[in-house]
Amino acid sequence: MITGKNYIGNRLAGKGSKTYKTFNPKLNIENDQNFVEATTEEINEAVFLASDAYITYNQKSGTEKAMFLKSIADEILALDDALIQMYCTESGLPDGRAKGERGRTIGQLNAFAALLEEGSWVDATIDTAEPDRTPAPKPDLRKMLVPLGPTVVFGASNFPFAFSTAGGDTAAALAAGCPVIVKSHPMHAGTGEMVASAVIKAAEKTGMPNGVFSNLNSSGIEVGVQLVKHPQVKAVGFTGSIKGGRALFDLAAQREEPIPVFAEMGSINPVVILPKALDNRAEELAKTYANSITVGSGQFCTNPGLLLGIKGAGLTQFIQSLSDEIIKVEPSCMLHPNIIGAYEKNKRKALDQSGLKVTADYSAEVDTNYARQAIVTVDGKIFAENSRLHQEVFGPFSMVVQCEDANQLQSIISNLEGQLTGTIISDENEISNYSMVVAALQNRVGRIIFNGVPTGVEVCPAMQHGGPYPASTDSRFTAVGTQSIKRWVRPFSFQDWPDNLLPNELKNSNPLEIMRSVNNQQTKDAI
Amino acid sequence: MITGKNYIGNRLAGKGSKTYKTFNPKLNIENDQNFVEATTEEINEAVFLASDAYITYNQKSGTEKAMFLKSIADEILALDDALIQMYCTESGLPDGRAKGERGRTIGQLNAFAALLEEGSWVDATIDTAEPDRTPAPKPDLRKMLVPLGPTVVFGASNFPFAFSTAGGDTAAALAAGCPVIVKSHPMHAGTGEMVASAVIKAAEKTGMPNGVFSNLNSSGIEVGVQLVKHPQVKAVGFTGSIKGGRALFDLAAQREEPIPVFAEMGSINPVVILPKALDNRAEELAKTYANSITVGSGQFCTNPGLLLGIKGAGLTQFIQSLSDEIIKVEPSCMLHPNIIGAYEKNKRKALDQSGLKVTADYSAEVDTNYARQAIVTVDGKIFAENSRLHQEVFGPFSMVVQCEDANQLQSIISNLEGQLTGTIISDENEISNYSMVVAALQNRVGRIIFNGVPTGVEVCPAMQHGGPYPASTDSRFTAVGTQSIKRWVRPFSFQDWPDNLLPNELKNSNPLEIMRSVNNQQTKDAI
Repeated sequence: MITGKNYIGNRLAGKGSKTYKTFNPKLNIENDQNFVEATTEEINEAVFLASDAYITYNQKSGTEKAMFLKSIADEILALDDALIQMYCTESGLPDGRAKGERGRTIGQLNAFAALLEEGSWVDATIDTAEPDRTPAPKPDLRKMLVPLGPTVVFGASNFPFAFSTAGGDTAAALAAGCPVIVKSHPMHAGTGEMVASAVIKAAEKTGMPNGVFSNLNSSGIEVGVQLVKHPQVKAVGFTGSIKGGRALFDLAAQREEPIPVFAEMGSINPVVILPKALDNRAEELAKTYANSITVGSGQFCTNPGLLLGIKGAGLTQFIQSLSDEIIKVEPSCMLHPNIIGAYEKNKRKALDQSGLKVTADYSAEVDTNYARQAIVTVDGKIFAENSRLHQEVFGPFSMVVQCEDANQLQSIISNLEGQLTGTIISDENEISNYSMVVAALQNRVGRIIFNGVPTGVEVCPAMQHGGPYPASTDSRFTAVGTQSIKRWVRPFSFQDWPDNLLPNELKNSNPLEIMRSVNNQQTKDAI
Repeated sequence: MITGKNYIGNRLAGKGSKTYKTFNPKLNIENDQNFVEATTEEINEAVFLASDAYITYNQKSGTEKAMFLKSIADEILALDDALIQMYCTESGLPDGRAKGERGRTIGQLNAFAALLEEGSWVDATIDTAEPDRTPAPKPDLRKMLVPLGPTVVFGASNFPFAFSTAGGDTAAALAAGCPVIVKSHPMHAGTGEMVASAVIKAAEKTGMPNGVFSNLNSSGIEVGVQLVKHPQVKAVGFTGSIKGGRALFDLAAQREEPIPVFAEMGSINPVVILPKALDNRAEELAKTYANSITVGSGQFCTNPGLLLGIKGAGLTQFIQSLSDEIIKVEPSCMLHPNIIGAYEKNKRKALDQSGLKVTADYSAEVDTNYARQAIVTVDGKIFAENSRLHQEVFGPFSMVVQCEDANQLQSIISNLEGQLTGTIISDENEISNYSMVVAALQNRVGRIIFNGVPTGVEVCPAMQHGGPYPASTDSRFTAVGTQSIKRWVRPFSFQDWPDNLLPNELKNSNPLEIMRSVNNQQTKDAI
């Protein structure tokens, strides 16, 4: 069913000599299929096709693009169990997670399709002319969002469906009108090829231009570097490590024509547990957080890696309970030997920092590639003085910081790097006494949660997934939800343009019946 | 009336040893006042104050911030003729232009005030909870735009009011909730200090925190470099040269925490004149463009520096008429000896390129610092092969490219760098035969104009001022119009947050009565 080749537009190609295999972490064996890394020639061809496709794809109506996205969803579903099996084989993740993530991916594609069908997302803004205005007549100006151009999407290791081949970045860019070239994640190249085949099939069925989508294999960094440096590439989406995201950001910033890179990178997602909450429900919270820290082997970007509290009997009890609870959790398989290797190394490095106390360290024997969870605790003063302790340990690991008082808590939060999320656990009204702590946390995060867990990222318009650097490279955008389309578009104004030549979104008659701002009034009326 | 000192918040300071003077280009003499460059200590103090002010300023309501902006406008007007005189003394621009630009600046401040008073600009988006949803309950999510933090604004040489101290960038950032530190433009430091005094007075009168605004003098690049590198600075606005804007962009991208830089830089604003229009109204067009090229001594970022046509009698006639007309224009004073120096040098460099024909070169004697306009023409093939000919000559200069045919015209446009504007001059229906030319132009610009001139940038919601690089460093935003506030904000989500602790914009009762998106429906209703 899979070929190991690259999709250069709708053509399968594999002229390269560099090959690699994916890995089954559960069985601890390499999978059979050889994947052929894209050659420079194939990369250039994919970009050339995308650049060409941009012109025609751009002229498709919202309804046509919506049909394309819905057809992608259908074709993914049509791959059925074979796709789910491939996902599990390449990720070590369970069948239920695969199906859930497929559902999320389908949901994203359909949500963007609905956005396109409704049509108002282009922010059509019209200021009509005032020819008699003095001292100078006012021209007619009409603005809407237009696509940036060919976009490169880097698949993520931890979400083979939802943040990879036809995941959020791809769905948003295609919805925006940008052709997409996916740099397939090497850990799930087979899943990537299967999903890519669904996208290509959908493009052909719905009459989209060849080159609107390509899928390139690569095991190292070279293909990605060539793509980001290519003059015809106009935007980049990435989900992964700070190191990887920053490298791409730097490359893009150094181009003769810099291009936007939206990289959603690491986060330790600080959780502040206020004293009364600790006093009243330390054990319940411990259970909740033992689960949140270990869910998906801790391989979520919203994993709570940092828990902060004020010293006292409540916090001591919580640390004890959390440590007891987390040891009870059955270890699970991580995505790849490289990932578990990095986890074990980073965990050891964290455990070896001076001043830390290990309160839970799963030591029973586990299957190869299964992650052993750990909890450590540290004094606020030591944490404040050692910024290496802020570093994410990607996996089922969390650090509890014991602060002297609210001032130290606030100061520690203020000095944290940017985060995707922050959480406040509070008893009724308790939070009102910590307004400066809350303000400090708000300043460091993209989303703040009350009495919950950061894991679980709802796909909806009000979701913000992204935050101050290094949570993401541009906090002005979100990576999740339909608003993520804004990353791949720019406003464009027509001045005194003939009505019949305007895009339908801006014509006097408002043929698409979308909501527009006309002379500062929101309306669906014709002009 | 002026002191030559820096405003570090509301305190005048000038401990530095480096001083400089502004210049009166009309009289060709230095002005009297010494300006003291800000010291490192003063820079750090300004940033520290801004960082502190951010917390309290951020908590001001939209109405309070609107009062601040309107008060700035009032205080600027209260400076009356003294300010207009200072402007003219430091810029060589005429009194009428000074008053017009002041009106535009006041208008911008009031437009942002109106935006804040209305309040819906924060894009409040609410998805209410579904506690009974399976398999997992849906949380309550509420999103709105929040300010990035202390913002540095670099004043522009060519708009001492509208794009400087209290110009568009400052008004937008203050409206967003960001404290502003202005790096005053050295060519109009006196105008800058006077306007800064108005901002400080307004801040004090309306109860804004000290540090919400600072104004720093500098004659070179050091102050700006220190500001952009300062860890507490979170965003940068700039209007000026490609060289200057790119240098700041690079500095910001290389920071440990990269920050967004919105730089609006050069543009040659290509104008395509289609054959029938040339045949039917070459002389009328020549008059219009002779004016557009020379208005404000050609010192507008939307100055038409590149005119493109297809070879023929019409184009020949147009070049002749344009050359005749432009020589009739009375030369005017440029902003500064450095600017006229650069103009004369760049004009000579352009005139010396091989294959160019000079068709107009104002040669009569002019006062010192007055710009002598010129028109050159070049064959399409030569232009296509020499990208140095794309470089902006800042001043009353334009180049007419004579293309072989529509294909060459399209190819030349496709290979242009990004531009603020593009213009199509067409007779009725003629444009329909040039759809590929128009598509190519749309792909390179931020605003496209039909049968008009690019000069004159209307301040209104539908204006896009910005475009693909190097017109600006981030084409996803505009520098003009109230939408420019989006440069200085980021989306922020509250999850399951108690209603009484939410900002008013997101409370169930919608106390501000703003338009919100609630469960995907636009409404002003309470929840």
